[in-house]
Amino acid sequence: MTLVGTMFDPVKALAEFVSHPSVSTDPSAGAGMAGARDFIAGLLRNELGCEVEIIDTPLHPVVLGRRPGRPEWPHLIIYGHYDVQPADPLELWDSPPYETVVRNGRIYGRGTADNKGPQLVHIAAAARLLERRPDLPLRLTFLIEGEEEIGSPSFAEVLETHREKLSADMVLLSDSSSLGVDDFVVTTGLRGIVCMEVTLSGPKGDLHSGLHGGPVVNPIRALIELCASLHHKDGRVNVPGFYDDVIQPQDWEREELAQLGQTEEEYAAQLGVPCFSPPPGLNPFEATRFVPTLEYNGIKGGYQGEGSKTIIPSKASVKISCRLVANQEPKRIYDLVAFTLQQRCPKGVRIDIVPQHDGRPYMVVPPHKPGAPKDAPKALASAFRAADAAIRQHVGKPPHYLREGGSVPIIGDIQRVLGVDSLMIGLFTNESNLHAPNESFDLRIMERGMKVSEAILEAVADGR
Amino acid sequence: MTLVGTMFDPVKALAEFVSHPSVSTDPSAGAGMAGARDFIAGLLRNELGCEVEIIDTPLHPVVLGRRPGRPEWPHLIIYGHYDVQPADPLELWDSPPYETVVRNGRIYGRGTADNKGPQLVHIAAAARLLERRPDLPLRLTFLIEGEEEIGSPSFAEVLETHREKLSADMVLLSDSSSLGVDDFVVTTGLRGIVCMEVTLSGPKGDLHSGLHGGPVVNPIRALIELCASLHHKDGRVNVPGFYDDVIQPQDWEREELAQLGQTEEEYAAQLGVPCFSPPPGLNPFEATRFVPTLEYNGIKGGYQGEGSKTIIPSKASVKISCRLVANQEPKRIYDLVAFTLQQRCPKGVRIDIVPQHDGRPYMVVPPHKPGAPKDAPKALASAFRAADAAIRQHVGKPPHYLREGGSVPIIGDIQRVLGVDSLMIGLFTNESNLHAPNESFDLRIMERGMKVSEAILEAVADGR
Repeated sequence: MTLVGTMFDPVKALAEFVSHPSVSTDPSAGAGMAGARDFIAGLLRNELGCEVEIIDTPLHPVVLGRRPGRPEWPHLIIYGHYDVQPADPLELWDSPPYETVVRNGRIYGRGTADNKGPQLVHIAAAARLLERRPDLPLRLTFLIEGEEEIGSPSFAEVLETHREKLSADMVLLSDSSSLGVDDFVVTTGLRGIVCMEVTLSGPKGDLHSGLHGGPVVNPIRALIELCASLHHKDGRVNVPGFYDDVIQPQDWEREELAQLGQTEEEYAAQLGVPCFSPPPGLNPFEATRFVPTLEYNGIKGGYQGEGSKTIIPSKASVKISCRLVANQEPKRIYDLVAFTLQQRCPKGVRIDIVPQHDGRPYMVVPPHKPGAPKDAPKALASAFRAADAAIRQHVGKPPHYLREGGSVPIIGDIQRVLGVDSLMIGLFTNESNLHAPNESFDLRIMERGMKVSEAILEAVADGR
Repeated sequence: MTLVGTMFDPVKALAEFVSHPSVSTDPSAGAGMAGARDFIAGLLRNELGCEVEIIDTPLHPVVLGRRPGRPEWPHLIIYGHYDVQPADPLELWDSPPYETVVRNGRIYGRGTADNKGPQLVHIAAAARLLERRPDLPLRLTFLIEGEEEIGSPSFAEVLETHREKLSADMVLLSDSSSLGVDDFVVTTGLRGIVCMEVTLSGPKGDLHSGLHGGPVVNPIRALIELCASLHHKDGRVNVPGFYDDVIQPQDWEREELAQLGQTEEEYAAQLGVPCFSPPPGLNPFEATRFVPTLEYNGIKGGYQGEGSKTIIPSKASVKISCRLVANQEPKRIYDLVAFTLQQRCPKGVRIDIVPQHDGRPYMVVPPHKPGAPKDAPKALASAFRAADAAIRQHVGKPPHYLREGGSVPIIGDIQRVLGVDSLMIGLFTNESNLHAPNESFDLRIMERGMKVSEAILEAVADGR
């Protein structure tokens, strides 16, 4: 076992981690990706004494850091991702996205909350614990990927190829949200996702809207009318078969949600929207967790500049993503949506649908909740119990057990390939501005998270 | 009268005129605007001996070139515009847009057809005629504006202010289309236009589509559903009152159109569309001329880049233009569309509608057609008669008398302010790629147009 030196400063480490602009979707961000990867590999090697392996993939390599041990020791995987979302629109940031700034107890920068900060919480917790108990009977594997923000296309294959090394009892991670510094959340489910880009093409070039306007099918109008057919008036998705495999929420899930402190009005004010429009029978908090969506992430067509340009454009396109809930299959949903689009496409235009990333939804029932499987692994039960107790102790209240609306597609892959469940402790909040300008991470949550993580790791190691 | 020297070369003049990128909608194109203006002012002064005045406006000045004469001489105004549409997308041009190239009897470049080439046809025709008959009993005024492509916002006021100088018998211009080198068109009507930009705003910033997707009204979806309501299934505009003031086409107009050589299939192949979808009761050729439209010229919202970014965008916007026919009023149509948009705007988003340019539709009944007013001015009757005869002689066939779908808003302004009608000879064709990459002008049409114009000017001067 390599000796570990004085504990590193997690805030300084986060600043350095964030300084590498690791935008996985941007082909020109190679240096940022490599910098973030080298940073996290070095931290695991030098601060935790891990054996570090860089696993090549067709796009962005995975960092695998291992603290081996005796076969009878529990084996816990800590997951994180070193890639981030694009920082644009840059003009809306109050400080440069890749230079962290601490203001009012929060650290600002792209990736501070998603996911560089939260993964450092667990790395720092492990470092603290190993400093205190160098002989801890726990095998640890840090699995840090670089393709989470583009849907982890290589991850499942990495799991398959390294299945033996990754044979573990459970996964611990933080890539989900909590409600606040005093309201921690244990995430019991994540939505899956399936993305696509739809392009309608009409005339071979842009046309003068006066000379040819009237008989020509305008691709923007065709796209508008096609897409408007994808929702019912009440907000439900109007794609036959879309809801077939959806598991209805359990009573305790609705009760947990009902106990949340935030009102609809507060939530609306926080997002800056005048009101909500959830599908029938659901409140806004339920609508983000228990049902799938079909959302437009971007649309473009024709003239985008200043002033007017009176054309009928030759093309228009839209980016669509569906969030999925257990037990929807991404491939089946893609097929249903694509089929519906093709069936309903107006004549006069050609339709092209390009699949983008996808990921399975995930759900775990905590060992002490109704409906939990009786044969949950000992490590998983220890971890959930320790998390509950440590959150009561360090946060002051028991955690909420909630599904959430975001997607961490690899959790479904881990469950499918490695056959293990995950304990997810939410460490960012709505104020963290995920995927948006002025992303930030609460430093008090960071500190509390480290204490909780340390307690979980120790409980799993000791088999309590 | 200033002596006029050897006739200038109109193709060389056009090349120089096009070399000034006079994009009136682009605030950074000041040098190009000034260059084009100076060029045309110089040509009128030096080649035709005109008294040239540059009339300031809040944006782009008007060039006024006058050949004065005795009060009893007929007075004819020749209209043109020295501004052009933007050249983007640049990558689709086969040669640089502001360097003319002659290929296969056509001259390529931005503005060759709209409207630098056609206006040079009349200037060259006047130069030829004045060279041949320096004492021609005709007062000529060249009225060349710089704001046509942005809807001529200053033009009506220039007409008002200079009403006395501009007291004329008629206007001659070419800013409409013909069917081909052997199929000239006299344009008897133009559509009006009214443009607006509509923006829907939802959350105060882009939101993570997983964490918040479900209850939040997505501005792209709201825009799609709002705009999809603006047309009936059969293609008619679904805005109450929209068609109230539309004048139905006369029989001779349908008959003129029916005589056109082109089939629907040929027209579809020319535009590269699989089929047409005109409103009920109209063929594609009628739909571009006799009825108004509501068209989307551009749409944008959310993430536009490579790959995916799973956000609910804070805004989405669309550029709408309506083409109008006689006797629709732009202001009334703007009010109807804006009111309908506001009425139907989904809750959960805020709507902002910004008016852009507008222009009146125009219609003139040729003196020899049913329904012509009995009191048409002598000059106008001479001009139409001379045009008919000269086109039969130099083109080989009588002209078609057609309304067309494009807009030259100033024609309606001239009729309203100066009380005179216009003779419009179409000089570009569908192959000219107006407002699009690879705009071009047919050099044979240019030559034939000069002969026709010369005959018209001489007939009006001689009172034949």
